[in-house]
Amino acid sequence: MHNTIEKAEGKLGILTPGLGAVATTLIAGVEAIKKNLAQPVGSLTQMGNIRLGKRTENRYPKIKDFVPLADLHDIVFGGWDVYSDNVFEAAMKAKVLEPMMLHAVKAELEAIKPMKAVFDRSYISNLDGDHVKQAATKAELAKAVMDDIENFKEANDCSRIVMVWCGSTEKYIEVSAVHETIESFEEGLLNNDPAISPSMIYAYAAIKLGVPFMNGAPNLTCDIPALIELAKQTGTPIGGKDFKTGQTLMKTILAPGLAARALGIKGWFSSNILGNRDGYVLDHPDNFKTKEVSKLSVLEDILQPDINPELYGELYHKVRINYYPPHGDNKESWDNIDIFGWLGYSMQIKINFLCRDSILAAPIVLDLALFSDLAKRAGMSGIQEWLSFYFKSPQTAPGLTPEHDIFKQLIKLQNTLRHMMGEDLITHLGLDYNQDLVEAM
Amino acid sequence: MHNTIEKAEGKLGILTPGLGAVATTLIAGVEAIKKNLAQPVGSLTQMGNIRLGKRTENRYPKIKDFVPLADLHDIVFGGWDVYSDNVFEAAMKAKVLEPMMLHAVKAELEAIKPMKAVFDRSYISNLDGDHVKQAATKAELAKAVMDDIENFKEANDCSRIVMVWCGSTEKYIEVSAVHETIESFEEGLLNNDPAISPSMIYAYAAIKLGVPFMNGAPNLTCDIPALIELAKQTGTPIGGKDFKTGQTLMKTILAPGLAARALGIKGWFSSNILGNRDGYVLDHPDNFKTKEVSKLSVLEDILQPDINPELYGELYHKVRINYYPPHGDNKESWDNIDIFGWLGYSMQIKINFLCRDSILAAPIVLDLALFSDLAKRAGMSGIQEWLSFYFKSPQTAPGLTPEHDIFKQLIKLQNTLRHMMGEDLITHLGLDYNQDLVEAM
Amino acid sequence: MHNTIEKAEGKLGILTPGLGAVATTLIAGVEAIKKNLAQPVGSLTQMGNIRLGKRTENRYPKIKDFVPLADLHDIVFGGWDVYSDNVFEAAMKAKVLEPMMLHAVKAELEAIKPMKAVFDRSYISNLDGDHVKQAATKAELAKAVMDDIENFKEANDCSRIVMVWCGSTEKYIEVSAVHETIESFEEGLLNNDPAISPSMIYAYAAIKLGVPFMNGAPNLTCDIPALIELAKQTGTPIGGKDFKTGQTLMKTILAPGLAARALGIKGWFSSNILGNRDGYVLDHPDNFKTKEVSKLSVLEDILQPDINPELYGELYHKVRINYYPPHGDNKESWDNIDIFGWLGYSMQIKINFLCRDSILAAPIVLDLALFSDLAKRAGMSGIQEWLSFYFKSPQTAPGLTPEHDIFKQLIKLQNTLRHMMGEDLITHLGLDYNQDLVEAM
Amino acid sequence: MHNTIEKAEGKLGILTPGLGAVATTLIAGVEAIKKNLAQPVGSLTQMGNIRLGKRTENRYPKIKDFVPLADLHDIVFGGWDVYSDNVFEAAMKAKVLEPMMLHAVKAELEAIKPMKAVFDRSYISNLDGDHVKQAATKAELAKAVMDDIENFKEANDCSRIVMVWCGSTEKYIEVSAVHETIESFEEGLLNNDPAISPSMIYAYAAIKLGVPFMNGAPNLTCDIPALIELAKQTGTPIGGKDFKTGQTLMKTILAPGLAARALGIKGWFSSNILGNRDGYVLDHPDNFKTKEVSKLSVLEDILQPDINPELYGELYHKVRINYYPPHGDNKESWDNIDIFGWLGYSMQIKINFLCRDSILAAPIVLDLALFSDLAKRAGMSGIQEWLSFYFKSPQTAPGLTPEHDIFKQLIKLQNTLRHMMGEDLITHLGLDYNQDLVEAM
Repeated sequence: MHNTIEKAEGKLGILTPGLGAVATTLIAGVEAIKKNLAQPVGSLTQMGNIRLGKRTENRYPKIKDFVPLADLHDIVFGGWDVYSDNVFEAAMKAKVLEPMMLHAVKAELEAIKPMKAVFDRSYISNLDGDHVKQAATKAELAKAVMDDIENFKEANDCSRIVMVWCGSTEKYIEVSAVHETIESFEEGLLNNDPAISPSMIYAYAAIKLGVPFMNGAPNLTCDIPALIELAKQTGTPIGGKDFKTGQTLMKTILAPGLAARALGIKGWFSSNILGNRDGYVLDHPDNFKTKEVSKLSVLEDILQPDINPELYGELYHKVRINYYPPHGDNKESWDNIDIFGWLGYSMQIKINFLCRDSILAAPIVLDLALFSDLAKRAGMSGIQEWLSFYFKSPQTAPGLTPEHDIFKQLIKLQNTLRHMMGEDLITHLGLDYNQDLVEAM
Repeated sequence: MHNTIEKAEGKLGILTPGLGAVATTLIAGVEAIKKNLAQPVGSLTQMGNIRLGKRTENRYPKIKDFVPLADLHDIVFGGWDVYSDNVFEAAMKAKVLEPMMLHAVKAELEAIKPMKAVFDRSYISNLDGDHVKQAATKAELAKAVMDDIENFKEANDCSRIVMVWCGSTEKYIEVSAVHETIESFEEGLLNNDPAISPSMIYAYAAIKLGVPFMNGAPNLTCDIPALIELAKQTGTPIGGKDFKTGQTLMKTILAPGLAARALGIKGWFSSNILGNRDGYVLDHPDNFKTKEVSKLSVLEDILQPDINPELYGELYHKVRINYYPPHGDNKESWDNIDIFGWLGYSMQIKINFLCRDSILAAPIVLDLALFSDLAKRAGMSGIQEWLSFYFKSPQTAPGLTPEHDIFKQLIKLQNTLRHMMGEDLITHLGLDYNQDLVEAM
Repeated sequence: MHNTIEKAEGKLGILTPGLGAVATTLIAGVEAIKKNLAQPVGSLTQMGNIRLGKRTENRYPKIKDFVPLADLHDIVFGGWDVYSDNVFEAAMKAKVLEPMMLHAVKAELEAIKPMKAVFDRSYISNLDGDHVKQAATKAELAKAVMDDIENFKEANDCSRIVMVWCGSTEKYIEVSAVHETIESFEEGLLNNDPAISPSMIYAYAAIKLGVPFMNGAPNLTCDIPALIELAKQTGTPIGGKDFKTGQTLMKTILAPGLAARALGIKGWFSSNILGNRDGYVLDHPDNFKTKEVSKLSVLEDILQPDINPELYGELYHKVRINYYPPHGDNKESWDNIDIFGWLGYSMQIKINFLCRDSILAAPIVLDLALFSDLAKRAGMSGIQEWLSFYFKSPQTAPGLTPEHDIFKQLIKLQNTLRHMMGEDLITHLGLDYNQDLVEAM
Repeated sequence: MHNTIEKAEGKLGILTPGLGAVATTLIAGVEAIKKNLAQPVGSLTQMGNIRLGKRTENRYPKIKDFVPLADLHDIVFGGWDVYSDNVFEAAMKAKVLEPMMLHAVKAELEAIKPMKAVFDRSYISNLDGDHVKQAATKAELAKAVMDDIENFKEANDCSRIVMVWCGSTEKYIEVSAVHETIESFEEGLLNNDPAISPSMIYAYAAIKLGVPFMNGAPNLTCDIPALIELAKQTGTPIGGKDFKTGQTLMKTILAPGLAARALGIKGWFSSNILGNRDGYVLDHPDNFKTKEVSKLSVLEDILQPDINPELYGELYHKVRINYYPPHGDNKESWDNIDIFGWLGYSMQIKINFLCRDSILAAPIVLDLALFSDLAKRAGMSGIQEWLSFYFKSPQTAPGLTPEHDIFKQLIKLQNTLRHMMGEDLITHLGLDYNQDLVEAM
């Protein structure tokens, strides 16, 4: 199959709805990396190795030397935002990176100005911004986004475009009739159906044009039958939901470890404090609900309480997010885990993670952009389950439960790459359940 | 191959050098479990499931229903100790289990009286005890242990015996000439060579009789060419070193997770406080040295700083154990991990594990006893690398680096079981590197 | 003045509205202490010393040997509850004390059966219970409580009675017209004014009879002009609000320490998890509001941001309580404190307190009962500011700000006792020990 | 007396043996503060208020406006070090302050070059440095230091000089014969007595000249009869030992708080990790011994186990310092405190303090310099017990136990200032605000 992957020639445009802390940290970082001022730590595509063949062969190439990814020097950035600050201004306000580093790439960042956003206050009531598109119908808004994409591609001489959602968490909604078919959805766009959120409009625009779409927030967005079907029709890779950073990252590392040892878990309490725009938006109960559903789903899949009722049948799992301005983007999580061992004796684990939200998220955006572009060139379309590794709440084919165990997710990702390039698989976990992938290969 | 595994008929004798906190917690626990007073949480053999076939087949039998293990009701316990307390008295002093639970199995525990121990103050200077064997030479001591084993087997009508070291940490020594061959070792026994430690005398006695030997301390013990060779000659499964509990367990869970995400690590500081006999012995620098070597080896193998110098080349790793009587057996670990992400920005993880040392160790002893007995019946001899899952510092064939990643260790263990029973492997990790195992099957 | 304090002769009845975790832990504890099964740790009246005279005099009598307090053997307990469980049953359900200890005082506990409670679902919507008084008006309910008190006193041959509120947190209310005067309040009782809460009815009944009343919850209760005036008329000591345990205790210890060093504070985030009935009640926003107001008031008084705007002017203070059943009564708090020092450089303090709510509260109830009885015998009436030491939100005379610094509170308490007994007040100055200094001056 | 305090006219020279992290952070900070680039947070003399008169008078002047202290603009800095780096270079290497801040005061810092140090490798074996004085006898070294002081005073046109030890911790020694009298000490200087450490030579030189000397390390230094006597003869204020920062600061805040509530303490385990030069020196057991003695003494005085044997008689206290380079000057402490309450039930407190060693120490140096200069002008000589507030192990008059409780230390300091200025001493009793009580009494 690797013979059939198109080469990564020409420029790749990465467009992000949302040019806040995460996106600006990504963009400033890539510019600094191009100038050799810093390293892309946390990015598997740039820093990660992959073992090939038997252990004794000692073959551990870097992933970027193994699969044909776009080079960082060929990347062009753009995006939409409800505020009109250019990327330098937005990055300064986000206070994630030090001013000295931002000044070193000031010219590059100032040159990137946000396009006007699709925005609907009813979905994010804690935000206001006036850099927004005005149109009579959601269909017109979708059209405007498609025009933006086409114009950006031409203006920047790009051969390919990918889109990664870096915007805020919208209020909680569930799949309803308008989301069921392409027809009902397009009709909803024309009718301004309230169940069509802004993020869906971006996703629709991208998928319609065959532009890969990755969803970094817990929003429903492209996890609806209409857009999954559209992705197949247009041969577009899609994926989501919600970048797996910080606390959930730790959870999907730790839970498989405890389960490996048949240790029981009675309770898991997770608290977070953060003071950035994300924290402010999540202070509203409607938006937190969306996040909570995404965060809570993790443990059940890993621990399988139905198979292990004595160990996990009584697990009480609670997640809280607290807006706390003094910390800014320096998100901090605190977990208390009540476990029990031999004869039921109880023990406790406390984890205090002083993390940086955007620092953990930025390399994920980069990897998703590069991998989804690779998938497109490899002819893979629809849900990219092999990218579950990056998501809190992986989008899966209907009827399959998502895999949250980060170690199984990693094996799946690595074997997909090996398979693409005609190398022996190190395991055969789950590939045969992904018919789309198999057919694509 | 599963057709050729001998059945688990008759009684299995589990003999432990050391009848302190760990062994008495195991014994009292098994007796309580037999009476349905408690559950064997933390034991993979008793509580764990194993997935068979494809995910969609939904086959998750309990391990004990899948492979032919000894039944808990067929187990008989015995052991040696430098103190003459019976198991009830020793368990009361250890203060791990509640008096109420110990009283519920008092008769069974009182019936188990320790045999006199092989003891050498020069190896454990913080301990004194007078329930020890007297003999002119180490050869005679080895003979006395073999007699103990034979007598126990007959007196208790056992069909099979396994031995698991549950004693203290000896002072640090390295492999020297006397350990190189069976001949030099046996000559050393006759000459009272000071490089032959008490634990080696137990291991020699067991292996000589074909009794599987598992080493729960970081002592050198059977990790010497002489005893490895002897194990092959006598068809005896052996394994070690050092039960993986508490802090190191967490470390081998967390480090693979961070590495999966290409996050860098600058420093890892690990502190422990505990107040049991183990803590008291480790307060002596000679004994701590042995433990430290075992605990420090873990990260390097998982993180591969040679392949990832930008991420792990500068890692500073420090481990401290502090004797702190107020905590008794309630070991507590505190870890500070300095990581860095995108562009080198630093973050911190703090883990506070309020664990119970013996509660975590007891089910490991049980599993090792049952699995090594299974290995023996399956005709597997020598180092059992598939049991690395249970050890801080897994003993491996010469020339191979040990695998510390607990998730790879688990896959290896599970696939060994699948292979034994003729089921499809879910992965093919590493089996082909273990010629001994493959030939045995 | 100490010549005029009435002696503590005869029995003292301690009546508690609420016979839940706190009250039953107190009662069982006192009974166990009487039998020499345990010690009254945490009780200043029983275990505390007080320094008298100069440092060099070495006079440190126990407080109970210094002031004339009721003896534990002269105490009789009673109370009201919405559940009809006797104290033994209630203590078993509360799961604070070990069954073995409760069984040792089973007969004494079973003998105490709750009187029917005054209850109003609109004040505590998360509780239901049917062991409640029925009456046409709140005036009748107050009368019924007064009858209960009189009957209890006679039946138990008590010479004195005190009442300590150990019930739940009611919904948040503020002072309104009905609370302003004795007349308006008594009219409100007749009219069933909705602004008169159950706790006010108990307080009214007690104060009307001259029975000292101490308020262990953050409820408004006797912190209203009407009841303060009534207390003066009837010569009754009163005090509140909200027992200072756990997190707030730590806060009033730590904040004065940081302020002593002129260290700045940017943020203080306080989270709690607990799983007892108190946690369940506080899961309702109306009730949490009452608690939050009580908990938030603490820092401002200690840090005086108006006088120290550069250090505390920007302080962001947030408190959260989370219901988490796995912990039961074992409340756990986690605090993150963002401080800054020299040149504004930031530092962080994290405090994780694994406490036991009722274990910390029980000795406070005892001390307040004994001290308020002492105050009554000493002829002190109205608000007892010298007992601020025990309260999260001390009730003070109108116009005065409460003192929250626990060290100043302690000096106030001790000097009040010294003053009562005619001893010199202590200032900790020690100038007279420093002859050089004294001479120099 | 305030009429007799000499005015703070002319320049004040602050000389520090040791121009490492602490001293350079102080100097750079003062220079930045003079330029209004930062604030002297953590300095009581600069930021602290003092309450005067009754609470209702509302008089809270800044301390620097209340007592006649030297103005920051009148301060000149100098010092000695074993390395020849100027203060700018040393500050850059110390990595405490950000380069940007250091560059803002670069010229001022570069102008300060260390004088050659008195150094003796046998007292600090982990340090080497060649910027050291050479002389035949310790008497000559003392003379050289005195010359340095005089030269500095003249060259910088100072009216007064104070000296504050900011050097490393020396190896542990106890008082011996040579330290007993001025005569034996001066003879020892001539004889090169090995029991006279470098820090004693500095202290002797200062005190001989009447220059106030404050000791920031746990070294014995001026806590010997010979130098105490000399201080009286020359009218020199002295004080020590060991700046109270970080963990011990927290300990002297928290322990009084727990004792206030009569809560018992079973164990207190304190661990530290730090990676600066101080940590490196303390990695040597001889030097750690000196520090350990200083750190361990704290709890006993506060808790008075002799008076409270049931609560503190069994307390196990352990302190560990671990050199951990990844943290640099960002010292981090972790404390585990095992307390017990009502009926002996146990609870735990964990404190994790992410502090910055030099940021906490620098303002202490400033305050000690200014207050010891004030004491000198006020005619106070010998041990300044009222400055105990700043020390881990306060030097006291023979026969008196030191006061460690930070709240009593603060009252002592404030009342000394009030006494100096003729203000009423404050007792925090507030009886006069409680008319009822007063009338009742």
